[in-house]
Amino acid sequence: MIVDNSLDELKKRENALTIIKHFIFNKNRNALFDLTGLSGGFIATDQEINLLETYIGPAVFEEEIQKYGKIHLCGEKILPVNRTSSGILATILALVEEDSNVIHFLPEFPAHPSIIRACNLVNANYFEFDNINKFHILENTSLIIITGSTMDHKILDENLFKEVISQAKNHNIPVFVDDASGARLRTTIFNQEKAFDLGADLVITSTDKLMNGPRGGLMTGTKDLIDMVKVKANQFGLEAQPPIILAMLNALKEYDGEDLINAFSKKEDFIKLLETKFTNFQKTPTGVMISVEGLYNEVKRNNTNISVSKKDLSFIYSMILLKNEGIITIPAVSMPGASATIRFDLSTNDGKKLDLEVLFNKIINSFNELLNVVDNEEKCKEIVFNN
Amino acid sequence: MIVDNSLDELKKRENALTIIKHFIFNKNRNALFDLTGLSGGFIATDQEINLLETYIGPAVFEEEIQKYGKIHLCGEKILPVNRTSSGILATILALVEEDSNVIHFLPEFPAHPSIIRACNLVNANYFEFDNINKFHILENTSLIIITGSTMDHKILDENLFKEVISQAKNHNIPVFVDDASGARLRTTIFNQEKAFDLGADLVITSTDKLMNGPRGGLMTGTKDLIDMVKVKANQFGLEAQPPIILAMLNALKEYDGEDLINAFSKKEDFIKLLETKFTNFQKTPTGVMISVEGLYNEVKRNNTNISVSKKDLSFIYSMILLKNEGIITIPAVSMPGASATIRFDLSTNDGKKLDLEVLFNKIINSFNELLNVVDNEEKCKEIVFNN
Repeated sequence: MIVDNSLDELKKRENALTIIKHFIFNKNRNALFDLTGLSGGFIATDQEINLLETYIGPAVFEEEIQKYGKIHLCGEKILPVNRTSSGILATILALVEEDSNVIHFLPEFPAHPSIIRACNLVNANYFEFDNINKFHILENTSLIIITGSTMDHKILDENLFKEVISQAKNHNIPVFVDDASGARLRTTIFNQEKAFDLGADLVITSTDKLMNGPRGGLMTGTKDLIDMVKVKANQFGLEAQPPIILAMLNALKEYDGEDLINAFSKKEDFIKLLETKFTNFQKTPTGVMISVEGLYNEVKRNNTNISVSKKDLSFIYSMILLKNEGIITIPAVSMPGASATIRFDLSTNDGKKLDLEVLFNKIINSFNELLNVVDNEEKCKEIVFNN
Repeated sequence: MIVDNSLDELKKRENALTIIKHFIFNKNRNALFDLTGLSGGFIATDQEINLLETYIGPAVFEEEIQKYGKIHLCGEKILPVNRTSSGILATILALVEEDSNVIHFLPEFPAHPSIIRACNLVNANYFEFDNINKFHILENTSLIIITGSTMDHKILDENLFKEVISQAKNHNIPVFVDDASGARLRTTIFNQEKAFDLGADLVITSTDKLMNGPRGGLMTGTKDLIDMVKVKANQFGLEAQPPIILAMLNALKEYDGEDLINAFSKKEDFIKLLETKFTNFQKTPTGVMISVEGLYNEVKRNNTNISVSKKDLSFIYSMILLKNEGIITIPAVSMPGASATIRFDLSTNDGKKLDLEVLFNKIINSFNELLNVVDNEEKCKEIVFNN
């Protein structure tokens, strides 16, 4: 085994880090393609950062995000928060009383744990449904939560969305939509209406999901409710800080639904392209991936003598992709214990810029290099640990 | 009255904003001096921002802040949080049980409201003392909080600090120090020991107070306790985001106690210099100020005919300081209802760069211009509303 324990994983990660720093500080950032899908965007000009640092800068960006936030989410007032989880906490602190009921409807279980935790914190009773036939509103319900799309990009049917909101309106209970990725996925890809337009009173989305913003949450809603949530956010330090707001603002300005549609269709084209050469790549919601087992089978298909472990193959391949082709994938840079599946996320900022043929060639070249070295353990060690 | 209502205040602020943008986008940022003392720092190179945007960037800065955070605060482990208030919330969520007691000792009342709010949230009983003779530890106490220095820079005597910690140790109760500005004020200016070295188990400081960091909180403590607080911070979205951590890191690297000592002695020199010409400037903890009444008396001393209100004088003077001399003070840029006292904070980044003679001349020149225009209401209006 080349990568045999946590210490080896850290050594591998350190090596990847050195290579990435070399790209950024000595070569060209444009030769580096972060396709992990887990990196936050931070778009800001030097002049914007200068303005940010003055007393007035934060206020300027807060005013501007009102405009661009409403274009993205509709609603009467925008509130940027530190994370989607902190927006959920602020909302529940503002609207949910002790011993009252919170009812959550979602496309499929499990629910995001932050909702349940915040309910526990205020001693509210939490109920969840993923079946409209079982869904019912209890007495003494203070808040109805709808999840627009899950982590795995399973989206809620628009008719179910409307049905839940209609029942909530009948009971005069505010509706809060957790539309983390849904605010883009539901509307841009699946042509659903924006959650506020469907009747939601409060909506939150994650600015790092399917758009090029920083990790953080952006809320909209009726002015009265947003004001109530904002008070709690400011009291407990849950609001987004000015540099994050600036980066959110620029990501909103840059956001173009066409890019997302392209990324989604790109994935379909790309898997076809990959299948001309490989048999073990699979689709993900926003790109493609090859598992540890898949990569092993792919190498085996080439009748190659393999003198390293299956998991090592993934680490070696991801390090070749990084060093030779500038492609960052998670196994190269991950902390100990992370999955060794190699994912290529095409909805990322770097992914959008990459021509599919170019990426395909990078993947083939790296794979050929992998075939060249897998019978040579020393050489593989060199690749994984020494930049 | 020139600035007669909220709408006028907003118009004034818009005008100031246009002037500031003009400095930044068309002139030279270095000709602008933000002396409000309320602006957050955001130091980051383009290459650091490039690295930040990759999957690995955040981890790099989180690792580096361990090193520089410990140099600043000591302790076993560092945790950067979104705000001092959110660090306080995370701590209380982690350590304080329902119905237990939290005891707060501080140099003088009132306590920062975030401590009391967080105690209420977890249904703990909150007690506070500013007199060591009355201070006593109740049964069933889960946490002792010490405030190292207040908003007004009143610091806690080191012997009292030690006494409270010693009593807490006797009862085996963890001690959490809110050292928002104290982590620098107490240690650098008053030669006290760092809170962790005095025996605190957890410490928090504000990275925008008396140092050039972004708004945010930096915590240290024993590894076990920080790990407990970190779990709560991550669960509820209370942690600092990577761009903020990067800016904290650079502010920590840049922090130099000498600068702070200089700023504090600069204030003494500066008030002497001002008193050669003026009689109504006063010292603040980190600079000087002139109140509305003070400015009026100062103008009156020059036997000038004044055709505007007392408060208008402050607005006009602050706008002249901004337009003619690039000095940003709060009355020029404030939202409706803010105080019209003009403060010059010398501990700010721009303040540190300013030579006292240069600043003195800027203040005199602007004051002379003020004397020139105060009998001409039309001209004053022009200054306040039209850049």
